[in-house]
Amino acid sequence: MIPAERRSEYKRKPREERWSELLNVAAQVIYEKGYQAASLQEISDRLGIMKGSLYYYIRSKEDILFAVLHNIHEMGLANVTSLAAEGGTAVERLRRVIRGHILFIAEHLVDTTIFLHEMKALPADRQREILGGATSYPKLFRQLIAEGQAEGGIRRSLDTELTATIVLGSLNSTYRWMRAGDMEAAERIGAHFGEILISGLVAEEHAP
Amino acid sequence: MIPAERRSEYKRKPREERWSELLNVAAQVIYEKGYQAASLQEISDRLGIMKGSLYYYIRSKEDILFAVLHNIHEMGLANVTSLAAEGGTAVERLRRVIRGHILFIAEHLVDTTIFLHEMKALPADRQREILGGATSYPKLFRQLIAEGQAEGGIRRSLDTELTATIVLGSLNSTYRWMRAGDMEAAERIGAHFGEILISGLVAEEHAP
Repeated sequence: MIPAERRSEYKRKPREERWSELLNVAAQVIYEKGYQAASLQEISDRLGIMKGSLYYYIRSKEDILFAVLHNIHEMGLANVTSLAAEGGTAVERLRRVIRGHILFIAEHLVDTTIFLHEMKALPADRQREILGGATSYPKLFRQLIAEGQAEGGIRRSLDTELTATIVLGSLNSTYRWMRAGDMEAAERIGAHFGEILISGLVAEEHAP
Repeated sequence: MIPAERRSEYKRKPREERWSELLNVAAQVIYEKGYQAASLQEISDRLGIMKGSLYYYIRSKEDILFAVLHNIHEMGLANVTSLAAEGGTAVERLRRVIRGHILFIAEHLVDTTIFLHEMKALPADRQREILGGATSYPKLFRQLIAEGQAEGGIRRSLDTELTATIVLGSLNSTYRWMRAGDMEAAERIGAHFGEILISGLVAEEHAP
């Protein structure tokens, strides 16, 4: 049983704060159990509210997953987009994006893991609603690599699209082994990734 | 309902063949639904046998997951170990291991995906039983990179352990976007990975 005072504490908060707390708690449950096994009962138990009260915020468990994935995608994309827009050569901007994306993953490890594991649990139209905007991660990495190849900084022998997929996929794979919120380690990992990937991509005449 | 003739067909096969078919079908169900949501009922339905017959082979759903993960780990580790044991410098052997591991993932995409997603569903002692042998993927990659640094082929400024983690994690991340069994694409992906990662790792005096 949930103590009554916890319930009333939750209900005293402003609606946005409760919604954000609900998403944080739900993300933690989905992270631990997987989306299929995560139950609204457990989410409401951890929030200290009645399960029925959740329907004040959502119509279904799917609405929670959608909100978590939508939010983390928006935030992460805004992060790399702004880093890519700062000045410098394409290679310099790519190095900045690599570091910044690694830091973002470390800082948002729970939500990133859900994004990378549970997207396929959403119906196709809701996946498109999240991923189908004018910009996207793959597009941003493709553009940076294509610009680097046009500038001569990145080897033209590499296939632009495949290379972008390899770079983005490699960065994302760190969610599997980074520790949440260990930003000092994330800095080291981001620097190593930058060194390895950038040296791996640079044109021969630009090699260090 | 399962037609009686399918049931008898399954039962006529030798035991090893039925076990291997059971694991293949179960892996496919786990791949599609996730381990938590995969049910013995669905596995037995797809095999065309009664659910109770599964208990002739296993005691629990966990036994199936253990067998799938154990087999794919043994096979994959044997693959990279034999590639690393062939001759050449550490850098040459690492390039061969990179290509061979990518091909292996493409060829065994369903089981590899389960290995990378569902290991934590096993109790700690059964995880150790799979991962705790004398050799391991991380150890093999660490050794190759350390040898490359000792030979002077790989930059000594890179942290050996972190670099091994980055390389192995980056290769494994391809399970997310490679197409199962498309070996032509896997060859291109393996070659690109080799080019990017090896160039990224080579010591400055060895840069192409």
